[in-house]
Amino acid sequence: VSDPRHVLLVGLPGSGKTTVAPLLAERLGWRSVDIDDEVERRLGMPVAQAFTDLGEPRFRAEERVAAEVALAAADPVVIAAGGGLIAQRGAIELLQRRAMVVCLDAPDAELAARVGSGEGRPLLGATPGVSLHHLRAQRSASHDQALLYVATAGRTPTEVAEAIAATLNTAVRVGTARPYLVHVRAAAVDEIGSYLPPSARRVVVIADEAVGAVADALAVRLRGRDRTAVVLAIPGGEPAKQWAVAGRLLERCSDAGLDRDDCIVAVGGGSIGDVAGLVAATYMRGVAWVVVPTTLLAMADSAVGGKTAVNLRRGKNLAGVFWQPRAVVCDPSLLAGLPERSFRSAFAEVVKSSMVGGGHVAEVVDRRLEAALGRDPEALTELIRACCTLKAEVVGGDERELGRRAILNYGHTVGHAVEALTGLGTGLDHGEAVAFGMRAAGALSVVEADCPAGDIAHQDALLDACGLTQRPRVSAAEVAAQLGSDKKARAGVARWVLLRRRGDPVTGIVAEPGAVRTAISAALAA
Amino acid sequence: VSDPRHVLLVGLPGSGKTTVAPLLAERLGWRSVDIDDEVERRLGMPVAQAFTDLGEPRFRAEERVAAEVALAAADPVVIAAGGGLIAQRGAIELLQRRAMVVCLDAPDAELAARVGSGEGRPLLGATPGVSLHHLRAQRSASHDQALLYVATAGRTPTEVAEAIAATLNTAVRVGTARPYLVHVRAAAVDEIGSYLPPSARRVVVIADEAVGAVADALAVRLRGRDRTAVVLAIPGGEPAKQWAVAGRLLERCSDAGLDRDDCIVAVGGGSIGDVAGLVAATYMRGVAWVVVPTTLLAMADSAVGGKTAVNLRRGKNLAGVFWQPRAVVCDPSLLAGLPERSFRSAFAEVVKSSMVGGGHVAEVVDRRLEAALGRDPEALTELIRACCTLKAEVVGGDERELGRRAILNYGHTVGHAVEALTGLGTGLDHGEAVAFGMRAAGALSVVEADCPAGDIAHQDALLDACGLTQRPRVSAAEVAAQLGSDKKARAGVARWVLLRRRGDPVTGIVAEPGAVRTAISAALAA
Repeated sequence: VSDPRHVLLVGLPGSGKTTVAPLLAERLGWRSVDIDDEVERRLGMPVAQAFTDLGEPRFRAEERVAAEVALAAADPVVIAAGGGLIAQRGAIELLQRRAMVVCLDAPDAELAARVGSGEGRPLLGATPGVSLHHLRAQRSASHDQALLYVATAGRTPTEVAEAIAATLNTAVRVGTARPYLVHVRAAAVDEIGSYLPPSARRVVVIADEAVGAVADALAVRLRGRDRTAVVLAIPGGEPAKQWAVAGRLLERCSDAGLDRDDCIVAVGGGSIGDVAGLVAATYMRGVAWVVVPTTLLAMADSAVGGKTAVNLRRGKNLAGVFWQPRAVVCDPSLLAGLPERSFRSAFAEVVKSSMVGGGHVAEVVDRRLEAALGRDPEALTELIRACCTLKAEVVGGDERELGRRAILNYGHTVGHAVEALTGLGTGLDHGEAVAFGMRAAGALSVVEADCPAGDIAHQDALLDACGLTQRPRVSAAEVAAQLGSDKKARAGVARWVLLRRRGDPVTGIVAEPGAVRTAISAALAA
Repeated sequence: VSDPRHVLLVGLPGSGKTTVAPLLAERLGWRSVDIDDEVERRLGMPVAQAFTDLGEPRFRAEERVAAEVALAAADPVVIAAGGGLIAQRGAIELLQRRAMVVCLDAPDAELAARVGSGEGRPLLGATPGVSLHHLRAQRSASHDQALLYVATAGRTPTEVAEAIAATLNTAVRVGTARPYLVHVRAAAVDEIGSYLPPSARRVVVIADEAVGAVADALAVRLRGRDRTAVVLAIPGGEPAKQWAVAGRLLERCSDAGLDRDDCIVAVGGGSIGDVAGLVAATYMRGVAWVVVPTTLLAMADSAVGGKTAVNLRRGKNLAGVFWQPRAVVCDPSLLAGLPERSFRSAFAEVVKSSMVGGGHVAEVVDRRLEAALGRDPEALTELIRACCTLKAEVVGGDERELGRRAILNYGHTVGHAVEALTGLGTGLDHGEAVAFGMRAAGALSVVEADCPAGDIAHQDALLDACGLTQRPRVSAAEVAAQLGSDKKARAGVARWVLLRRRGDPVTGIVAEPGAVRTAISAALAA
């Protein structure tokens, strides 16, 4: 996990928080803290007695203080939370900033069996079954905010702890206003049920028809006693990115009876994520959505960050909103059938990440690029995770692209111009256009940002190794003229992302027009 | 102003902050503080010397501390800010939480003439004209966040102070994440230029074709040396609220060359605001927008709050987002031509505000309703301002309708059901349906929330006084059956907003089905 915070286990009575916390802590090499134990120690009496003798408000206040103390620890801690803690209004949002909230759950009947007569459980009273049902209703809105939902029925506490540890060890946390996890590992899709809010009773899977089988398998996994799932398959690629397509999908969500607690799952490449995200953002003014990218480009780049978009006649991605998903599921085993051109082309964004991020992602790309190009599963997983970690770090600090997030547009100024000139979907593909754009932005960086020529030579060599050597059949003057129409242009003047060196990008640069034409010519001629 | 915070004057050198601050403070009955003076006092040397001797970083730190001290005052203060203060990244967002930021401006040539040789102005150096141009570019993003922009060219400092005082004394502040003002007064539209971010070079006015003349006059006011404005007139009412209409408007915004610093202005009733807001929210993932409501319903209710929406086949307002406007301009003089039915029907939301808000808004409604029904301009202004103040208070604390904001849906559960049953736009209009819904919710409140019958009798008498006595031609059973389809229903069960008494609403209530049918029958029979 990129940003290793505490883990807070929440769940109804009997869900196993107290038992699982130390087992999980052991696997993560962390400490564990049980809030009930802390409250008992502070008050010098058992929880049930404190609840009765001191009253619920006092008890809840002690719970809150104990949680704050636990969360203030400098070393990472697994915290078993008292259930009342998160039931307080706004509490979950505060807790999410300092801990990854994991919700343990089981059906009411199993919970009732586990807690037995409810002894020592102040909220359950004489009829635990009825009380559990009410508690579940009361707390569902808070539980729906967790990063991860773990069904514990039929699993031992050790198995539960191992599953959580495996998930957290391979996931990347995106620290947006509502944080979420990017799950990067083989077979991550098998756990799809753990990523959806438990209140989601209806799921609409919006899928590229080319990966209909993946979507159907997902829908089967999602269906259950309390949940229905329907698949809406549409043609992928740029044709999906139309306002009218989003409109038809909205009607079909409404036909499916989707309501505001329900969930949309996007299965496909970046285009499907873009349109499905717009649908999720606008259906009833925003419902939860989960992204399951099935292309390398989407896994390494577009699925993280909450950008949704469709194209308008005059340009790509001109209509959309920012709407963060609840989870992103990057399962490299879904890449098996990906055509070679799409696979190769995605490495443009991988190389881009290494050029703007530097550090860890540059190290991983330099070391693993060759193996990843040969489709080695572990190399691919490592590469995707490094790219997602960079993206999470950038997006978490700048959700709406007001500042640093713009570094991710390195290579895209010329890339978008080339895509617009050669016709969306008919000339170079997105990755090929971005690779060309990086060559131009790299050449310009040397002149306008004093970037060492060796850094750009290294970039170009990486792109060559990926087979990203395509040049558009347009002139430098045509490209230069198109730049002013870019979405990031201000008053018709392109703002460049350049490199001062690898890993040190600078944004918002207005470049000298002569230098721009020279850089584009150099990239065309190379 | 509902939430009287400090006022912070910002602007380029020569914009008049230091001169205007004490004049404005005098008119508001407040104190004034000049940050430059404070810094000079703290450091014991003139600003220019401090800048040279101690360096810019130290100087900026002192500026920040002086501002924090000024903002911490318990009594309201007008603060003349050093320009560097807001240039710091993120500073404006912090300042906005504790002050209303007002930006003073004039063309570069006038600013240069005012500052003369630039003596005592450390940033201007030997060529103030050139330096001002650069400072403007650097600070435009921060200035664009202000709540109000005041052109000072050709006006004396006293006139400027009077204009600001008049605006702030009649405006309501909405304390959302990005705060904004609701301007409620006659001729407020004449100042439209003060409400748009200065960077907006192109304005698209989306207008109900029925108020095309108002839109054209606005466009004329908006056009200037540095700004173009085009009017897109469309049919108003429910036909405007279609996904496809939003799509066509997005294409036309793109045709008009709108870019991310530009602005959309909505002129019309609630439907125009709904669709124009969706366009503003989605064009380039969100551009600034200003709402100019031309119906009483929109002024008293829908224009404040940032809800955007279009209808889907299966229901009203099912697709949209939350996107707060930059300003709302409620000019009661625009209501002159409003047909009597639309005018009367809007009083349903006015009476609703008084029932859920109680206190001030209830007092104003009880005292001014009769005069307002007779279209007395001052009574209307007072009523609209009271409704907007309540709405601002509720929306500011709950932007995305997760909690308290739901109180504004009082009467809407049955209201929406009736609208759906009688066909959108063909049966009762929205206000008439809500008035009927309030009668039903009121009757239910007496039974399910122990509301005093007298409070509901008073409500019904107010509705009678407004002529809102229409009943739908449907049965109680039909209405009851429709309730489960409401957007606010969860799992097909309606959640009610009821009153414990006038001014004390309670939300999320699941009512007993028999009591619901009885309440609807009572409202039908009354």
